[in-house]
Amino acid sequence: MPIIKNKSTIITTKLFKINKLDIEFDNQAIREYEVISGTGSGAVMIIPILGDNFLFIREYAAAINNYSLTFPKGKIDDGESILVAANRELQEEIGYKANKIRQIFSLNLAPGYMDHKTYIVLAENLVPSKLNGDEPEDLEVIKYNKNNLSNLLLESNNIDSRALASLYIYNQITNDNNS
Amino acid sequence: MPIIKNKSTIITTKLFKINKLDIEFDNQAIREYEVISGTGSGAVMIIPILGDNFLFIREYAAAINNYSLTFPKGKIDDGESILVAANRELQEEIGYKANKIRQIFSLNLAPGYMDHKTYIVLAENLVPSKLNGDEPEDLEVIKYNKNNLSNLLLESNNIDSRALASLYIYNQITNDNNS
Repeated sequence: MPIIKNKSTIITTKLFKINKLDIEFDNQAIREYEVISGTGSGAVMIIPILGDNFLFIREYAAAINNYSLTFPKGKIDDGESILVAANRELQEEIGYKANKIRQIFSLNLAPGYMDHKTYIVLAENLVPSKLNGDEPEDLEVIKYNKNNLSNLLLESNNIDSRALASLYIYNQITNDNNS
Repeated sequence: MPIIKNKSTIITTKLFKINKLDIEFDNQAIREYEVISGTGSGAVMIIPILGDNFLFIREYAAAINNYSLTFPKGKIDDGESILVAANRELQEEIGYKANKIRQIFSLNLAPGYMDHKTYIVLAENLVPSKLNGDEPEDLEVIKYNKNNLSNLLLESNNIDSRALASLYIYNQITNDNNS
């Protein structure tokens, strides 16, 4: 198992920390890495199911200066559990609360250079319930029939990779025969 | 469409740049964002198919100080095309070259706070061919039958989210009936 020989923080900003690591491998090879840590307790992404539909959102994505198709998501607040955070984000972002909710996966975004964990939560039995969040504008809710997503990749620009990973995980856990 | 009112660079490191953006939305709401840019031309992730198998790699992932299951991947070198980069990484990381290779998607990792693009490449008709890369140790190649991945999520820890997104995309483009 590789060993971290040195670790130093290059910078800590409001949202991120960049660390420099010197790693020694079993064969004595040494490499320098830069890795990004998020501040806080990770994030949730929620797959909301209403009838036969997945409820996506179209949200402004600052890093690409464009709108992105994704699932409801957000940071977990201090002291908040994963499922409480998920149900809060659902109410803030799409105006629903889930009466049936469970974590289905713990996702590593890009573990080579980021330690960000996103907990994937499946939300069912939705009932209308609205909380005010910190969104700068109302989010557009986009429905896709969960039995026919064949146009998703063609129709939608700038899909969040975590939403695609979530769909793969959903397919796997809901369909034993799905490859 | 939201407008970037101010943009400043907080830091530029060897691998990353963190920018601070002030964004004004159509409703005049203003929010401050921190976003991460990669340096360079983006990255490739390759789905290598050999017979009935996907070829994954198990690679040390510095940000989580553990091994991660992922597909062969790497940064695109200056002046290199996506497909040339993909075939180079394949030869460096798993010792194969693809005689049939095509880009199937352009993936946005986490567009809210990172502008990283990963180009997903499907590699078929593999023949043995080895190039020396900059890997600190040999990578373990892990085969999964592409018609039976039902154990993937259960068996493998620390799966790279981009590999799961790649599998979703692969399923969509190779199976019109797949949801």
